Amino acid sequence: MTTGDQGSFEVRPIGVVRSTLRSLADAPNQVHQGAPAAVIDIDPAYAGALRRIEAGDELIVLTWLHLADRDVLETHPTGDTTIPLTGVFRTRSPDRPNPIGVHRVTVTAFEGPASLRVDALEAIDGTPVIDLKVAMRRGRPAPSDP
Amino acid sequence: MTTGDQGSFEVRPIGVVRSTLRSLADAPNQVHQGAPAAVIDIDPAYAGALRRIEAGDELIVLTWLHLADRDVLETHPTGDTTIPLTGVFRTRSPDRPNPIGVHRVTVTAFEGPASLRVDALEAIDGTPVIDLKVAMRRGRPAPSDP
Repeated sequence: MTTGDQGSFEVRPIGVVRSTLRSLADAPNQVHQGAPAAVIDIDPAYAGALRRIEAGDELIVLTWLHLADRDVLETHPTGDTTIPLTGVFRTRSPDRPNPIGVHRVTVTAFEGPASLRVDALEAIDGTPVIDLKVAMRRGRPAPSDP
Repeated sequence: MTTGDQGSFEVRPIGVVRSTLRSLADAPNQVHQGAPAAVIDIDPAYAGALRRIEAGDELIVLTWLHLADRDVLETHPTGDTTIPLTGVFRTRSPDRPNPIGVHRVTVTAFEGPASLRVDALEAIDGTPVIDLKVAMRRGRPAPSDP
């Protein structure tokens, strides 16, 4: 099959990451290497979509990794050339055909009506945010859901 | 802030879901309600990005929920009107500004060089696939990584 007949889709930013990570050189490539707390500023046009989010909620954040190389199909994970060349669909590399980042965070506070502080986010300052969802735990919704 | 200065981004399908789920009426709205096994057909142009994926791998699949309503900001989760109106960013509703689905699957077999059978996927037949990533376990890469 080919996907040419499916056309393409337009993603619109719904917010932006505010972080002390200023460049790719600063960014850890896995969350356990120590991502800092960050703020997610949501466009006021989408503020209604935050209704009932509160501190303590675990969310999935989708970002658009705007500095990524979309033409890369294979890579040495974490840049380690002793690791065999691996398809990007079996890695977390930002370089991939659709450079969407998936991050799990805990909301720690609201900094404004449409501004969320989160515990740890491995994305550099200015990274567009394209979606938020409630996280699932072990295949089930979080205990506080719905 | 506004996101207007960030422009928008083009997402290109990299594959498609093949499933016995033929309509939204068939689709469970949470994986624990019983999603069926499915096949992910990857466009041969992206086959290189599958290198080193094998049966047993746990992947995150991102889909484009092409039948969603992108203008919805608040909803009653699972359609239950006894649940308070909730912002879509605190739900898993397909209706949201950027209708991207996030699914965790286990690869059970290859059905062809660019065709993966997966254990359970709550997406209807014909849903575009836009990304695959290796899943993380408890904040760390899977034991078999990299």
